[in-house]
Amino acid sequence: MLSLLALCARIASGALTPEDAIALVRDAIAECEPAVGAFASLDPSPVVPRLGPLAGIAVGVKDVIDTAHLPTGMGSSIYDGWHPRADAPAVARLRALGAVPLGKTATTAFAFLDPAATRNPRAPGHTPGGSSAGSAAAVAAGMLPLALGTQTGGSVIRPAAYCGVVGVKPSFGLLPTVGMKCFSWTLDTLGLFTAGVADAAYALALMTGRPDLDRVAAGHAPRIGVVVPPFCDAPEPEGMAALRRAAAAAEGAGAIVSDLDLPNVFAEAFAAHGAIQDFEGVQALRWEYDSHRGALAPMLRAHLDAARSVTPPVYDAAMRVAREARGRSSSLFDDVDVILTLPATGPAPAGYGSTGDSRFNRLWTLLGVPCITIPVPGAGLPLGVQVIAGIGMDGAALQAARFVETALTAHLDGPPG
Amino acid sequence: MLSLLALCARIASGALTPEDAIALVRDAIAECEPAVGAFASLDPSPVVPRLGPLAGIAVGVKDVIDTAHLPTGMGSSIYDGWHPRADAPAVARLRALGAVPLGKTATTAFAFLDPAATRNPRAPGHTPGGSSAGSAAAVAAGMLPLALGTQTGGSVIRPAAYCGVVGVKPSFGLLPTVGMKCFSWTLDTLGLFTAGVADAAYALALMTGRPDLDRVAAGHAPRIGVVVPPFCDAPEPEGMAALRRAAAAAEGAGAIVSDLDLPNVFAEAFAAHGAIQDFEGVQALRWEYDSHRGALAPMLRAHLDAARSVTPPVYDAAMRVAREARGRSSSLFDDVDVILTLPATGPAPAGYGSTGDSRFNRLWTLLGVPCITIPVPGAGLPLGVQVIAGIGMDGAALQAARFVETALTAHLDGPPG
Repeated sequence: MLSLLALCARIASGALTPEDAIALVRDAIAECEPAVGAFASLDPSPVVPRLGPLAGIAVGVKDVIDTAHLPTGMGSSIYDGWHPRADAPAVARLRALGAVPLGKTATTAFAFLDPAATRNPRAPGHTPGGSSAGSAAAVAAGMLPLALGTQTGGSVIRPAAYCGVVGVKPSFGLLPTVGMKCFSWTLDTLGLFTAGVADAAYALALMTGRPDLDRVAAGHAPRIGVVVPPFCDAPEPEGMAALRRAAAAAEGAGAIVSDLDLPNVFAEAFAAHGAIQDFEGVQALRWEYDSHRGALAPMLRAHLDAARSVTPPVYDAAMRVAREARGRSSSLFDDVDVILTLPATGPAPAGYGSTGDSRFNRLWTLLGVPCITIPVPGAGLPLGVQVIAGIGMDGAALQAARFVETALTAHLDGPPG
Repeated sequence: MLSLLALCARIASGALTPEDAIALVRDAIAECEPAVGAFASLDPSPVVPRLGPLAGIAVGVKDVIDTAHLPTGMGSSIYDGWHPRADAPAVARLRALGAVPLGKTATTAFAFLDPAATRNPRAPGHTPGGSSAGSAAAVAAGMLPLALGTQTGGSVIRPAAYCGVVGVKPSFGLLPTVGMKCFSWTLDTLGLFTAGVADAAYALALMTGRPDLDRVAAGHAPRIGVVVPPFCDAPEPEGMAALRRAAAAAEGAGAIVSDLDLPNVFAEAFAAHGAIQDFEGVQALRWEYDSHRGALAPMLRAHLDAARSVTPPVYDAAMRVAREARGRSSSLFDDVDVILTLPATGPAPAGYGSTGDSRFNRLWTLLGVPCITIPVPGAGLPLGVQVIAGIGMDGAALQAARFVETALTAHLDGPPG
């Protein structure tokens, strides 16, 4: 994979020019893209800024996020050839930092469940996950050092786990969702894919103008609460094994690890996610449904057909539960710095008919808390764990994620000294 | 003015066809528009549905809200000739109800402060207010029975008061802001302009699929708390006189009227509005600022130049205050059903250099509570009062607003019996 920080270091040292770095990425794309299918479109003649902390960094932009210079297709024929007037603020910000939005990455239609054509570069024959399939796959294949995704259920965290990359879903509202195709204004969150946690921390600190997101207190061992939500169906053995391996590695490196129970309001919040997503999705996609129902991808069409039965009182009740759970979410972190849990049920499912299951993501998306997928090294299909902190504690989440990532790498090399 | 309900009744009775009703509106526009300048564009050949509860109802759509069939200009040359692919969900919903989005209404550039070219049909030589200038003026001039506006500071409530029409800013999130040009995702709210409160209640109930918003418990006299926020500079005498007249009329009609003080957290929330609007506005308009700064309207450009100095810690502190105040806002309604306060400092200021002052709106926008402007009949320039209920209590706000509106009309005819 391409480490954003490693590329930045080579550019800063003069070993690479920004143009060289973009050329390197374009070569990787030329080589890998035919087998992966991560891109919806590519800029054939990118302008490469010479200045800025991200000069020379190529970025993939999920194709539900507006770009002025490239079409924005939403993964749907309804938006064939559509060119927004403006870049989404997150894209404009990346440009101002010197980055090059080099291509749009494949998305499931309107970031829902109908699979994109993308293949999982780390798990041949298995889904890359969704909905941010192209962004996860492009980073996993070493085609990009940074890609933007979006999450309404589990669309950043899950494909990151399936593809063996780092995925970051920051706190709700930390990155603007302006210029991103809305599915649910209560849930939609913009996120990042990178090779490592430090790469993501560096990018997120720059994108938000919050340098403290990229400051690490050296040697700080976090208090970790391990959560296996009892209200989700049981995870697969491989998923549980990865979680246990990560917890053991963190404990071995000095973290204080304990099990954490979730009060009942969080089970209710988990159940409330669907009504909120459905009720808001029906509204957000009203023009598409009313004017182009026949052209909607089949799973989305069937879902919207059914979702129209969610009434305002059902939605209002779900929103009350969500507010209550959000209000109480900080209490989960009274005695731990972060939660460690599964990012998905297990490895990427075989085949391309499904993007997998978001049941280990929906509660955390609803709570708006920062979530990070860390790959768990091992033989076989990629697996990951998910590190979660309280809302607004993105720095703590990144720091603990880096700790676990380091512990897992050391763990590979033998027990920590 | 054109009453939506009166038009609907004439259509339902067969006295008017939907086509006739649209022709009537087009005639009014042909007559009044040259002097008012309420429209950014008009559909030259509208398709008029024959069915639906709003069949025959022409709607004006503020030109920061996406429409597929008409350009969306944002009040800025940067968006000259821009055609979105989709209708905003609110527009698509109105179409599904049978309404005809007949034209885009003039807006200040990106819904900020640089005045639009619209004139106040009820106050020659005076501003119609902003930013939803065209929507307020079109309803005031009898050119439209319904128009959509948006409010981030006071952009629905204030122009409604200046133009002598009903303006409704519903609870935050009740109407989707999807497809509306974002200025501040924490504050932006979609609202309505109509001739009377009942017209707005009917439209809002249909648009939201919440029939209870249009149900009135006959004869229910509300408990009203009169608020003159001490942290706003003093209102003008005409504004205070209108507030007193409305309170007296409501009391005369049986309402229980008392004065209400605002706890200090609401003064802090009032002060926090600016940092939130500024910080989010800089992000929301990043592409426009980075790529087209020279083409931005001058007040907006100068404001964004300055707003860039709002740091993440200042924003975070403002958001903490906002959350605290929102959490405590329901306690304002422990002993009253609604608040009655000023919608603006007084009548529309003379001249066209300013759209007026939003200081009597910003707190309520930040709290996300439903707000309704009711015209206060009288000689001279239009004046209004603002009725406010707790968040999610839009039905209570509409019902109390209708009570006050009726009381004010009866008051004109002499003391209530």
